[in-house]
Amino acid sequence: MLPYLGSHYGNPSSLHRYGRRSERALRQGRLQIAGIVNASPAEILITSGATESNNTAISGAAALHPGGHIITSAIEHDAVLEPCARLESAGFSVSYVPVGGDGIIDPDDVQRAVTDRTFLASVMLANNEVGTVQPISEISRICREHGILLHTDAVQAVGKISVDVNRLGVDMLSMSSHKINGPKGVGALYIRSGVRIMPMILGGGQEGGMRSGTENVAGVVGFGKACQMARDDARRLHMMQLRDLLVEMVLKEIPYTTYNGNRNQRIPDNAHFTFLGVSGEDLIIKLDEEGIAASTGSACSIRTQKESHVLRAMGLDHEHITGSLRLTVGVHNTRQEMVQAAGALKKVVAQLRAVSPFKEKYRFG
Amino acid sequence: MLPYLGSHYGNPSSLHRYGRRSERALRQGRLQIAGIVNASPAEILITSGATESNNTAISGAAALHPGGHIITSAIEHDAVLEPCARLESAGFSVSYVPVGGDGIIDPDDVQRAVTDRTFLASVMLANNEVGTVQPISEISRICREHGILLHTDAVQAVGKISVDVNRLGVDMLSMSSHKINGPKGVGALYIRSGVRIMPMILGGGQEGGMRSGTENVAGVVGFGKACQMARDDARRLHMMQLRDLLVEMVLKEIPYTTYNGNRNQRIPDNAHFTFLGVSGEDLIIKLDEEGIAASTGSACSIRTQKESHVLRAMGLDHEHITGSLRLTVGVHNTRQEMVQAAGALKKVVAQLRAVSPFKEKYRFG
Repeated sequence: MLPYLGSHYGNPSSLHRYGRRSERALRQGRLQIAGIVNASPAEILITSGATESNNTAISGAAALHPGGHIITSAIEHDAVLEPCARLESAGFSVSYVPVGGDGIIDPDDVQRAVTDRTFLASVMLANNEVGTVQPISEISRICREHGILLHTDAVQAVGKISVDVNRLGVDMLSMSSHKINGPKGVGALYIRSGVRIMPMILGGGQEGGMRSGTENVAGVVGFGKACQMARDDARRLHMMQLRDLLVEMVLKEIPYTTYNGNRNQRIPDNAHFTFLGVSGEDLIIKLDEEGIAASTGSACSIRTQKESHVLRAMGLDHEHITGSLRLTVGVHNTRQEMVQAAGALKKVVAQLRAVSPFKEKYRFG
Repeated sequence: MLPYLGSHYGNPSSLHRYGRRSERALRQGRLQIAGIVNASPAEILITSGATESNNTAISGAAALHPGGHIITSAIEHDAVLEPCARLESAGFSVSYVPVGGDGIIDPDDVQRAVTDRTFLASVMLANNEVGTVQPISEISRICREHGILLHTDAVQAVGKISVDVNRLGVDMLSMSSHKINGPKGVGALYIRSGVRIMPMILGGGQEGGMRSGTENVAGVVGFGKACQMARDDARRLHMMQLRDLLVEMVLKEIPYTTYNGNRNQRIPDNAHFTFLGVSGEDLIIKLDEEGIAASTGSACSIRTQKESHVLRAMGLDHEHITGSLRLTVGVHNTRQEMVQAAGALKKVVAQLRAVSPFKEKYRFG
C-alpha cells in the first residue's frame, strides 16, 4: 500500500501518468478481490466497507421495488437489520426468519416467508457472533424459484471458508477488507452481472456510476493483497486447529461452560462460550489485563450495551447471554498462545465466580 | 498512519487495549479535523470522502422535508448536482442559481430563488475548476433570515484559505482528506450542533448513529495530520506566489490565452486558462510527456467526456471550453518548476497550434 500513500498519489480519474498508474493499481486490486469469491472484476463494486455494501444492496434493490417485501433473518448484523427497519417505516414489509438453537437457519422458514411481493432476501453467510455458516445455496434455490434477489453478508466468511458466488447462487455479496487483515475503510459489494440496483452515493460517476467518489487506491491495493493472501487453505487449517485446541482446553478445564453454535457448520476462527455466573464484559476487562483481546457480541454493539439479538434468537436466556464471550483466533496466533489464553480464561473465570452473585446457585466453589 | 495499518490494529469499538488505543487515535484525528474549520469535534462526522459528505448533507436534510425546495448553483460539483437531480425526480424542486462570467455567484440570485418551501441551500465555497471563492457569508445571512439550512462543499477551500464555520455561518460543510495531501478514502461533514439530518448509512451506530461502519482509523489519523499541517499561512502564501508567477509567465509568453475566473476571489493554488485553437485533452497528453500533470475540468468528469458545465455557466463558448486547462500548484512545488511548466506549455501550445484547424482563423503563425 505504501507507494499509493506517497509517491504514487495520482487520482485514478486523471489522464496523466500519475492517474494512469493509480488506475492500474485499482484494476489489479479489483481482480484480486473478485478472485476470492470467484466473481468477474466487473461485478465488484468497491465501497468504504461492509456496512456501506449492505446498505447499498438493500436500499439499492428496494428503490426499484417500492412497498415490496424483504426476507431476512433474526441473526443478521445491524448493518442489515437497520436498513431493513428503515424500509419498514417507509412502507416496505420485512420478515425475520428465526434460527435454531445451534445458530443455523432452516431454509424451509425462508420458503414459508415468501409472498408474491417478495423481491429480496438478505441472509448472512456466516454469523459474526457465533460463527455459524448458513445454508445459502439451499436458500438460493428457493429464491431463484420465486424470482427473488438474494443478498448475503459474507463479511465473516470470505477468507475463512471457500466462498464462490456461483456455487452459492447469490446475486449480491458483501465483503470487508479489515476482517481478513486488510486495511479498514474499504470493502466491496459483488453484484452479479445483469442485476440492477440503484446507487446510493452519487456524483462523479466512479465505479460505473454505481458508487461515486475518488477511489481509495491504497485501500483497494491493501484489500486486494489481503484477498490474495487469504486464499490459502493452510491458513484456514491453522486457524481451525488452534480454535479446536482452545475449545477443547476451555471445555475441559472450566466447568459450567457451554460452547455456543453448531460445531461443524462454523467458520474456522470463531469460538463462542457461555461461562455461567460471570459477565462477559468483566471477562473482557480481566482478560485485557492478561494481554488477551476478547469480545462479547459484535464490536459494533458495545456502545449500545444492548443484549445480543443473535443469542436471544438462539434461545439463550438473559443469564446465559450475560456470561457469553467471543474469542477469535488469527492467522498469526500460535499454539502457545492458545494454551496461554485457556490458562488466562480459567484464572479470570475462577476469580469472577468467587465473587459472583450466582455463587450459591451453581455451587461454583 | 503507519502504526494504525500494522501493530495498532484494534477496532475502536472494542473494549480491550487495542480497541481503546484506536479510539484515542480517532479522537485526536477528529480534534485536528475540527480545528481546521473552527468546529467542535462533536460536530465532525467522519465519512469515506467528500462525495459521501455531500450526499449525506443533501439527502439527509431532504429526508426530513419531503417535497421541499432546494437552492443550489449551476457550478457545483457533480457530487452535489447528482443528488439534487435524484431528489427532483422524487418530487423535490431545485433552483440552480447562475454565475457571472468571472465565476462568482451573486447572493441576490439566491435571495430571488427563495420560496416558502425552501429548506436547504447548497453552494460551494470554492469552485473545483476555476477556483473562484463564493460569497458564502452573504448567502448565509439570506438563509438565516428565511430559516433555510446552508450546506457548503468546501473541498477546494479547506487548507487553501481560512475557513471558519462560524464566520461563514454554515450549517453543514463538506471536507476531503486527499485534497490537502491526506490519504484518499476519508473525508468529513461538519454538522452544526443542533442541526438534524437523517443518516444515510445505517448499522452498528458508529459516529453517534449518524454514519455506521468500522472507522477508517489510519485514514482519520492521516486526515487529521494533514489538517494540522495545512493550517499554515506560509504554505498558502507559497502556493499563491508560485501560482501568480505561473500565470504571469503564461499570459506573457503565450498569445491568444485567457485566464478564467475572478483573479482575487480565488483559492491560491488554482490557475485556469483557455488556449485558443487547441484541445485541453491534447494539451494534457503533451504536457504529460514533459512531466507536467494537468487537468481539464474535474478529474471526475474525464470518463463522461462531457463539456464543463462550470465553464458553460460562466458563458464560455464551445471553442473556449475545448481549449481550457486547469493547472494546480502544490505545496511541494518550486519556482523552478513553474518556469519549467510555463516553458513546456509554451512549447506544446505552439506545437498543437501549428496543426490546429483554427490556424487560419486566428493567424497563430
